[in-house]
Amino acid sequence: MARPVTLISGQWADLPFETLAEKLGQWGFDGIEIACWGDHFDVDQALSDDAYVKNRREILERNGLNVWAIANHLLGQAVSDPIDARHQAIVPPDVWGDGDPTGVQQRAAEKMKDTARAAAKLGVTTVTGFTGSPVWHMLYSFPPNDFAEIERGYERFAEQWSPIIDVFDAEGVKFALEVHPTEIAYDFVTTRKTLDALDNRPGFGINLDPSHFAHQFLDTAEFAIEFADRIYHVHVKDSIKRLNGRRSILGSHINFGELERGWDFVSPGHGDVDFEDLFRALNRIGYQGPLSIEWEDSGMDRDWGAPDALAFVRRTDFSPSTVAFDAAFERK
Amino acid sequence: MARPVTLISGQWADLPFETLAEKLGQWGFDGIEIACWGDHFDVDQALSDDAYVKNRREILERNGLNVWAIANHLLGQAVSDPIDARHQAIVPPDVWGDGDPTGVQQRAAEKMKDTARAAAKLGVTTVTGFTGSPVWHMLYSFPPNDFAEIERGYERFAEQWSPIIDVFDAEGVKFALEVHPTEIAYDFVTTRKTLDALDNRPGFGINLDPSHFAHQFLDTAEFAIEFADRIYHVHVKDSIKRLNGRRSILGSHINFGELERGWDFVSPGHGDVDFEDLFRALNRIGYQGPLSIEWEDSGMDRDWGAPDALAFVRRTDFSPSTVAFDAAFERK
Amino acid sequence: MARPVTLISGQWADLPFETLAEKLGQWGFDGIEIACWGDHFDVDQALSDDAYVKNRREILERNGLNVWAIANHLLGQAVSDPIDARHQAIVPPDVWGDGDPTGVQQRAAEKMKDTARAAAKLGVTTVTGFTGSPVWHMLYSFPPNDFAEIERGYERFAEQWSPIIDVFDAEGVKFALEVHPTEIAYDFVTTRKTLDALDNRPGFGINLDPSHFAHQFLDTAEFAIEFADRIYHVHVKDSIKRLNGRRSILGSHINFGELERGWDFVSPGHGDVDFEDLFRALNRIGYQGPLSIEWEDSGMDRDWGAPDALAFVRRTDFSPSTVAFDAAFERK
Amino acid sequence: MARPVTLISGQWADLPFETLAEKLGQWGFDGIEIACWGDHFDVDQALSDDAYVKNRREILERNGLNVWAIANHLLGQAVSDPIDARHQAIVPPDVWGDGDPTGVQQRAAEKMKDTARAAAKLGVTTVTGFTGSPVWHMLYSFPPNDFAEIERGYERFAEQWSPIIDVFDAEGVKFALEVHPTEIAYDFVTTRKTLDALDNRPGFGINLDPSHFAHQFLDTAEFAIEFADRIYHVHVKDSIKRLNGRRSILGSHINFGELERGWDFVSPGHGDVDFEDLFRALNRIGYQGPLSIEWEDSGMDRDWGAPDALAFVRRTDFSPSTVAFDAAFERK
Amino acid sequence: MARPVTLISGQWADLPFETLAEKLGQWGFDGIEIACWGDHFDVDQALSDDAYVKNRREILERNGLNVWAIANHLLGQAVSDPIDARHQAIVPPDVWGDGDPTGVQQRAAEKMKDTARAAAKLGVTTVTGFTGSPVWHMLYSFPPNDFAEIERGYERFAEQWSPIIDVFDAEGVKFALEVHPTEIAYDFVTTRKTLDALDNRPGFGINLDPSHFAHQFLDTAEFAIEFADRIYHVHVKDSIKRLNGRRSILGSHINFGELERGWDFVSPGHGDVDFEDLFRALNRIGYQGPLSIEWEDSGMDRDWGAPDALAFVRRTDFSPSTVAFDAAFERK
Amino acid sequence: MARPVTLISGQWADLPFETLAEKLGQWGFDGIEIACWGDHFDVDQALSDDAYVKNRREILERNGLNVWAIANHLLGQAVSDPIDARHQAIVPPDVWGDGDPTGVQQRAAEKMKDTARAAAKLGVTTVTGFTGSPVWHMLYSFPPNDFAEIERGYERFAEQWSPIIDVFDAEGVKFALEVHPTEIAYDFVTTRKTLDALDNRPGFGINLDPSHFAHQFLDTAEFAIEFADRIYHVHVKDSIKRLNGRRSILGSHINFGELERGWDFVSPGHGDVDFEDLFRALNRIGYQGPLSIEWEDSGMDRDWGAPDALAFVRRTDFSPSTVAFDAAFERK
Repeated sequence: MARPVTLISGQWADLPFETLAEKLGQWGFDGIEIACWGDHFDVDQALSDDAYVKNRREILERNGLNVWAIANHLLGQAVSDPIDARHQAIVPPDVWGDGDPTGVQQRAAEKMKDTARAAAKLGVTTVTGFTGSPVWHMLYSFPPNDFAEIERGYERFAEQWSPIIDVFDAEGVKFALEVHPTEIAYDFVTTRKTLDALDNRPGFGINLDPSHFAHQFLDTAEFAIEFADRIYHVHVKDSIKRLNGRRSILGSHINFGELERGWDFVSPGHGDVDFEDLFRALNRIGYQGPLSIEWEDSGMDRDWGAPDALAFVRRTDFSPSTVAFDAAFERK
Repeated sequence: MARPVTLISGQWADLPFETLAEKLGQWGFDGIEIACWGDHFDVDQALSDDAYVKNRREILERNGLNVWAIANHLLGQAVSDPIDARHQAIVPPDVWGDGDPTGVQQRAAEKMKDTARAAAKLGVTTVTGFTGSPVWHMLYSFPPNDFAEIERGYERFAEQWSPIIDVFDAEGVKFALEVHPTEIAYDFVTTRKTLDALDNRPGFGINLDPSHFAHQFLDTAEFAIEFADRIYHVHVKDSIKRLNGRRSILGSHINFGELERGWDFVSPGHGDVDFEDLFRALNRIGYQGPLSIEWEDSGMDRDWGAPDALAFVRRTDFSPSTVAFDAAFERK
Repeated sequence: MARPVTLISGQWADLPFETLAEKLGQWGFDGIEIACWGDHFDVDQALSDDAYVKNRREILERNGLNVWAIANHLLGQAVSDPIDARHQAIVPPDVWGDGDPTGVQQRAAEKMKDTARAAAKLGVTTVTGFTGSPVWHMLYSFPPNDFAEIERGYERFAEQWSPIIDVFDAEGVKFALEVHPTEIAYDFVTTRKTLDALDNRPGFGINLDPSHFAHQFLDTAEFAIEFADRIYHVHVKDSIKRLNGRRSILGSHINFGELERGWDFVSPGHGDVDFEDLFRALNRIGYQGPLSIEWEDSGMDRDWGAPDALAFVRRTDFSPSTVAFDAAFERK
Repeated sequence: MARPVTLISGQWADLPFETLAEKLGQWGFDGIEIACWGDHFDVDQALSDDAYVKNRREILERNGLNVWAIANHLLGQAVSDPIDARHQAIVPPDVWGDGDPTGVQQRAAEKMKDTARAAAKLGVTTVTGFTGSPVWHMLYSFPPNDFAEIERGYERFAEQWSPIIDVFDAEGVKFALEVHPTEIAYDFVTTRKTLDALDNRPGFGINLDPSHFAHQFLDTAEFAIEFADRIYHVHVKDSIKRLNGRRSILGSHINFGELERGWDFVSPGHGDVDFEDLFRALNRIGYQGPLSIEWEDSGMDRDWGAPDALAFVRRTDFSPSTVAFDAAFERK
Repeated sequence: MARPVTLISGQWADLPFETLAEKLGQWGFDGIEIACWGDHFDVDQALSDDAYVKNRREILERNGLNVWAIANHLLGQAVSDPIDARHQAIVPPDVWGDGDPTGVQQRAAEKMKDTARAAAKLGVTTVTGFTGSPVWHMLYSFPPNDFAEIERGYERFAEQWSPIIDVFDAEGVKFALEVHPTEIAYDFVTTRKTLDALDNRPGFGINLDPSHFAHQFLDTAEFAIEFADRIYHVHVKDSIKRLNGRRSILGSHINFGELERGWDFVSPGHGDVDFEDLFRALNRIGYQGPLSIEWEDSGMDRDWGAPDALAFVRRTDFSPSTVAFDAAFERK
Repeated sequence: MARPVTLISGQWADLPFETLAEKLGQWGFDGIEIACWGDHFDVDQALSDDAYVKNRREILERNGLNVWAIANHLLGQAVSDPIDARHQAIVPPDVWGDGDPTGVQQRAAEKMKDTARAAAKLGVTTVTGFTGSPVWHMLYSFPPNDFAEIERGYERFAEQWSPIIDVFDAEGVKFALEVHPTEIAYDFVTTRKTLDALDNRPGFGINLDPSHFAHQFLDTAEFAIEFADRIYHVHVKDSIKRLNGRRSILGSHINFGELERGWDFVSPGHGDVDFEDLFRALNRIGYQGPLSIEWEDSGMDRDWGAPDALAFVRRTDFSPSTVAFDAAFERK
């Protein structure tokens, strides 16, 4: 049986939830990974208003859709990041408050706990998201890093997230970090460190998104194998390297979609990610959850692209075999 | 005539200047790019004490060495960087003072002006170094950058460095920024922006170091061609990519020399840099200055490596031709 | 809105125009780039006979087709080429006349002016074609070229084509040279020279065909960006390199389709051209004209191939986006 | 006209022949390459029972299927192999008998003659299969091979197979060896030796299967050209290399489907084989026989994969052209 | 301090030991890895005749040479291999005896014990060699392997070698298996199995030879890291892939040096092995033993090649660093 | 025994012969391939003046040099080329005469006969050179070639060269065509045609120069194997591809040394040619003649480059082996 295909609603937050649900239903998606921003899913309202949650469910059902996860990347980011001006644009006013960094972090942490509670109320067991990172800005060691300070960053992260994950555990919900540059974990090494910092507790796992691996020259399928028991959710998103000796792999401080970038996000199947290899690895580790398309391609019309991506996943994802073939060569 | 070969003394700052000079003289180097840290070259003392400068010159002459440039990367870094704890380790106590960021930046800027004056006094016309960057920490645009803020970063940089370059101009000395991640310029795009921010004034140019380009997948020879009139100094340093699907090109927040890094610095000729291609480009643009070996290889004994690197440069660098060959096919 | 897809009729000149139009209509093409040879479009008749032009239009309309350009490669070739025996096969008898080279060139030039007039009469504003080249035979500099002679070749070309383009300007029609080996322009360097020789006058632009770039190892998408304002028409044609150490990239003086050639033309999507990359570049430069399939594959049945190529273009060409995706991450 | 597409029934021998025929008919296959094991085709019964043969034909017709070849790999293998315990699992009890190697080989040889007779009775002119090899175990020359012994192995092979091919000739049937590691021929060199050993008699040719070439780094299309007149049957099967520096191309003595193998079989179109290049070569040599899918992919559900493979072949195989395209450029 | 460079004498067994020692001394080698065949080192004589051992030592000293290991590949091969005609050429008559396989294996095993005793008497603590393999001939699983039988092969190997290694332990000598196709271990997977079969007892380790890894597409440096504590000896031998689509990676049953082979052995530094990468890995794991050149290149004169190989190793092997370079950037 | 190393004097024709001979003697060359232009070797004078020839020999001997071949590329070129203005610069006035094409070709042909006579008189048995080509200008088939005309070109070539080779045969001298674009043979296909056109007569063979193959993506070593019995002389010259998506492999009608060329000539060992692979092939075919450096690198000082090239050849060329290595594994 093939895996369900969903779409994360975050990049469509300019559309009302109901409008988006209608589109997705017509295109044939199986569900939505609902973002906790725009008007798609309001954590506070969900906790305070039973009718709101019921209404969300009704909209889904009316359009033949299901939900396996909600996404709260923006608030999670504010928990462990050093707060700067950019965070004001991504957190709601009551979390930003006076903008004092410690306060912002704490209020964001509380809201992440509420997100677990809201997820439980909606009836989903996975929250995808970001964590931010106390050490991301020390990526390139110059001025030379005191590497003990990096280790302390992982400890601080663990102190910030352990109480959050306690609530997740209590609610029977799991947090799935999207491993991603700018986050506490963005590759094999840092993912190991992150899981270790939390004593590998099961409440904290991974939202695996290959688009953040391809431009780092990482093999997502091998990652899936190595961290098999922590793959809680999977994004289908693609990226492409456009290196020509004049474009840096580091991105040149210019926006996605700019001609001179060394890599960019593209619609699934249009980039460097080897999705068949990834899906085979997911079969091998027994992942049965949704394949959630995160659609982002600054050079393509999204109404052309989203159904194209859905068709791509439908024809690329297949069920594993249970037959050993050479066995058939043997005489009965 | 081949170009002179020097060594930048920064990574040998644990050795007294005289000891290092003796080594280099015996190995056959043509000169030293003297770092303004360790005991190698003290800017304050040079300005206040004529004998000090004379003594430096004598040590060089005694060992058959010359000097074409001095290096002050560490102080330059503090001019435009947002100051954090790491800077305390790289600036002298009188620059650090109480550690208030604005004060540190201003005192570092003053010391850079003094560096130009000291260079003039020593009789060299080039200071190599870093600038720091107000925007480096916004490398990956998440939380999403306000790209206007990036532009304002280049303006701030120009405000900070214009008065410094005024002094360089007055002293007849040029500043050569080592284009490098963590600096205001690290690739083609950002170098263009940097030079533009300073109205392409001739006092500010480039110290071209290919080791910072190779892991970005940039072509150093094309860079030399494009910025031909701003190549004021050249480093010979190498780096190697060790990508295997499990190591990130971003460096994994681990130190140079660690097995799991996706790239590392290595002794010249042992890595990915195509030095012949670079030297041909330098011939093409008419660069006649020193080739200054920056020796850094965490897996090799430096006393084995530095003479190996010198021999590598001697056999790889050659003079250009003035003969058009097919012309010789013509009958006289 | 996707771009219209047409087919250049030149390689189907063995079929009567009406037969071809029926085929294309049934296959679902949007139009025809009508070749001025075979019986497809007769320039003389068009100029002398209004009913002829009307009839051409009727045939198109009857089959649901449109026309955005006519093609006159064969006559254009004779304008600037040194005339030899091969030209007799590609120009009509009245242009060949007695075969005296200068006369052939002049008569071909007059007919190109007529082509502009006929295009205007048919109601199209683009004529695609070739120019020939006074210097192509000096491709490999042995016996050593006098390179001043190459420059004189570009001047001669400009003298021959300026009066032709005057007529194009007068008629409100543009000439689009198919950049191609054997022509005055076949790569980046020679295209720059060609446009410069004509003072970059707008009446003379480019018919961009990637199949002539791939075997030269040229990047068609970068070409589209560099010459953005001169891309007047686009061919969809593919080529493939079949190098194995025994086959020369130069073609071995054997015909297309021979096993031992180092490269060959193939049906679009079956070769080396990265069409998605090209179409993204066309989106970036705002090209809205036709994508005209030039179908040529010596190893494939053309009635299988042409609809296969049409389907390929339909699924590969897409509209650009107007949404900035990370913007959606921001809170409202 | 496109080539018929069949499926070799060997890997589906767990299904009754009729069940398989129904599946294939519904999926749209043109025929079956019937394996002489499982209950699919019993050589003894075919020779002794006319109704059996008629029944097989009826099952095919009922499902809109045809048959161009039968396969007897398992018995052929026992003719020239040194017999060991593994052969007991692949030959029927009456061939195994007491397991004495010479006896097993002789009985297998007799049964191969019967296979030719049964093929004739069924009305097919091709038997595909294996031969085994007296020298395969000497693949890596350590302890150092006496290479004269290799030559003697080819002579022994010829002695064993000549009488078999005599029967094939008499019956008007051809034997098509699947060139494959473990067989007397597995690459260019050994295929030449094999055909030479049999004096290139026409009764013995090749069943060309590209999946056995890709992991050897062999070019199947070039093989088809070189051995054009001996390509009697073609398999469509794919394989993929998964080399990462830790997986050996030699297979590590672990089963297909294991994660640590350096290569594996995969469903057609999902691996390294360039089928278009192969089909173009088949067009070039005039091969008009079936393309027989041998479906084997330990990571894919076979009921998903077989129709996927059929669709792949249908869209990839095309008829050759008879038009010379540049000819159309000439004036009529 | 650089590692000593030796030469394994096996491929020079046509020369008397003394002649070879003189050559090596003159060329500047540090020692010999003495083969137990030809007249180089006779195990029986060494055990029975003290003067013989003393004489060997004198010859070495006279030529300025040392010995760190003796090699007994040929006898080791006969311990676990299924014995066939090829073994008669590589074992002495008293081991071959009547050629009964079990007897040959047992006598070879006894002689391997004696080899440990002779090594101890000579004063060396390492014996390099082969083991043979009960399962090598099952490399390609057709007829399909019973993989339980592979496991039993590793058990049989352990039963055969445990008593041998008991003697090695008693003598304070270690056995270093040259991981190599045809042996019980030839890649990562089979090396893990082999060491596990012997419960990872320290008496049994690895003679690491990269030439056997390169044609398998294995990364020798990663192998050295993974099996760091079992790398007891290192060969410097090179191999090259010559794949062109017509040559199989499997070797085509033709001898080394034949034009049509897909890979071949070549003099160190002339092939695919990345020796610098390997030597860096050896530095990382702290290997301080000899680098023993195994010289074999069927296309090169060995008297030209051996000193060329020595020079190659001398200029490629270097000592590791103990300095952390960025530390030098810090102010004192 | 290694092969002698010579230098072709053509690109040094601006220097008097004696000056060049002194240089080469001091650098350690074994000989000169003397060009028949500049003052190096005058065919007419050699035939008319015995003292001239004796003097040439004396100059060689005085500088420890030998001569194995003379080169007459420029006159050979005029034999089969369509004559144009460029030929006037490469032939002497008495050959050019009134410039009438047929006359120039005939006079050049006569002079080539004289070259054979002069070679014999000098005591050398090889003349290297060019032939020109009647069909080179038809390289790219547009306007479409009449391929029968290509065939006629080969016939014309044979008619022109047969009488010349008759004289070579009579004099006991062989002509060695440098296979090269612009010549009658420039790759595998055209070399076969060329040799066939002359009925493979032994008087006409090949001067093998890999620099003309590398940019065509041809494998020179395979060429040496295929045409083994016609390899009469070998040039050591290198070329490099500098493709970056903007530079054409066809050369852009710009001179060697220009930045925008897609490929260029470089000093041996600095480009794409795999000389070790070539020298191994020469060993395999038993070529014992000179390796003649043709030095041409527009970016390198030739007095630095020529000795660098000589050292490169000396360390890269080696003698073949006569030992079969695995044989040494066998017991005596």
